[in-house]
Amino acid sequence: MTRDLRVAALSGGVGGARLLHGLERCLPPGRLTAIVNVGDDLEHWGLSICPDLDTVMYTLADLAPVARGWGIEGETFHALEAMRRLGAPDWFALGDRDLATHLRRSEALRRGEPLSAVTAGLCRALDVRSNVLPATDDPLRTHVETRDGRTLPFQEWLVREQAPRVARIRLEGPRRPAPRVLEALERADVVVFGPSNPYVSIDPILAVDGVRDACRQKPVVMVSPIVGGQAVKGPLADMLQDLAGRAPAPAAVRDHYGALVSHVVVERGEAAGLDGVRVLEAETLMTTRERSRVLAEALLDHALGNVR
Amino acid sequence: MTRDLRVAALSGGVGGARLLHGLERCLPPGRLTAIVNVGDDLEHWGLSICPDLDTVMYTLADLAPVARGWGIEGETFHALEAMRRLGAPDWFALGDRDLATHLRRSEALRRGEPLSAVTAGLCRALDVRSNVLPATDDPLRTHVETRDGRTLPFQEWLVREQAPRVARIRLEGPRRPAPRVLEALERADVVVFGPSNPYVSIDPILAVDGVRDACRQKPVVMVSPIVGGQAVKGPLADMLQDLAGRAPAPAAVRDHYGALVSHVVVERGEAAGLDGVRVLEAETLMTTRERSRVLAEALLDHALGNVR
Repeated sequence: MTRDLRVAALSGGVGGARLLHGLERCLPPGRLTAIVNVGDDLEHWGLSICPDLDTVMYTLADLAPVARGWGIEGETFHALEAMRRLGAPDWFALGDRDLATHLRRSEALRRGEPLSAVTAGLCRALDVRSNVLPATDDPLRTHVETRDGRTLPFQEWLVREQAPRVARIRLEGPRRPAPRVLEALERADVVVFGPSNPYVSIDPILAVDGVRDACRQKPVVMVSPIVGGQAVKGPLADMLQDLAGRAPAPAAVRDHYGALVSHVVVERGEAAGLDGVRVLEAETLMTTRERSRVLAEALLDHALGNVR
Repeated sequence: MTRDLRVAALSGGVGGARLLHGLERCLPPGRLTAIVNVGDDLEHWGLSICPDLDTVMYTLADLAPVARGWGIEGETFHALEAMRRLGAPDWFALGDRDLATHLRRSEALRRGEPLSAVTAGLCRALDVRSNVLPATDDPLRTHVETRDGRTLPFQEWLVREQAPRVARIRLEGPRRPAPRVLEALERADVVVFGPSNPYVSIDPILAVDGVRDACRQKPVVMVSPIVGGQAVKGPLADMLQDLAGRAPAPAAVRDHYGALVSHVVVERGEAAGLDGVRVLEAETLMTTRERSRVLAEALLDHALGNVR
């Protein structure tokens, strides 16, 4: 069933992208806007890489492997093998097909095109029918201060160093919203926070000028990235411990957002401690596209106050 | 048999590279210096591509397919397919493994490293034991004026437009010799002009400041790129007609170089018109690595005046 709604969804990588895929199937074409984290972006091999934007784009283009979630289905890594032989860093694995995206983007950025325009062009070429926006065209970047005293750009911390324990997250860079970001939030009937890491996926979007205020005017539904006391993907469980002194639970994530969140979707039986918000218990693991769609539909019903 | 000689060889792509492979096997390590054409170089997909340098490097690293001569054995083209989907120009086919070379080079050039240093680094990584030098670190480029009035950068003329008939060849750009080029020529016992196109492979090397004068001091052996009245590869037959009004024959190529060439190696039975130079008739088609070696050995004997 499609609904005559406008939805704006804040998203990191795999979890957020899967939810976007489900939401897109519940809405008429063009009514979904993804506002995507760019704090993870990096320069690698001389190319501009946007891991979250690419995961969202590939997922919405049905190019991403459903199980792994990131990259491109059937991808090969022949360039990576050759780069390794040439002595290039190989800790960040770029696939051969994926390289085309980074080559096109890097060339356009170097010509002076803003990231939002480049992203729109890539999405058009891949027949993505939703609006995929970087939160900002500015080089806003996430840096991680580790307990052992290092400060690392996000991907070096996560991928190269395998996520050592964290003392602090720091956002650096200008933070003007990309074109259409604030407008999409203002026009949205519902704002969704995907099941993404609050510290390093959603916060860098909320840190963009005007985004937090725009969210405050709307029903905001958060999908818990914690299921069964664990992060569905990534280092969130440790981060909740390190940055908030909290055990990994949906309530710990919601408390991080405070009054910004009005509705929460959690796994069945995991509503403990979620006071002062409207809670929906559902099956939240999006292991198939159909599960993503069913979850998205329940989420929209919930946000609109429909009885199920 | 290896010989205690120093050889400097001017080279374009496939033919020159095959001869270099043979020469390397006749000489002690490090005694062969390849001085390679950069007039064909281009920017494509935002990358710096050096087709002749790469063919020489891949051939000497035993990575090139022996039959095809260019690119990398077993190469895949997944990035190219993805680039096509993204609307990128696809007339110049870059393979997935090959991309690694262009990525490394482009990144280093953008950092300000000269092409000669980048090339040396790539050759080291690929265990190439001869010296491979770009003729110049400057952006000296070959442009082709066609009979129908267009002026095209070399690769657009050759690959994209499929070599339309030529009115004039024009070299553009500064032409300072790369480090070690003149020294290699001065120290060489023999200078070799590979079986490459005189107009668009060897001339752009000879146009580099000091190269022609350095060659004049040495025995210069030219291997004919014309066999059986045809160019072994590429558009040379038409070019001899268009630019010199000559039928394709070894003598037409030799006459182009004039007194610069002292020795010529031609296919058996094709010595007609080669007056005033020392001629060796041999089997010149380098269809296997062993044939390249045998030809190189005969060539060196010939240049040194040994009786065979």
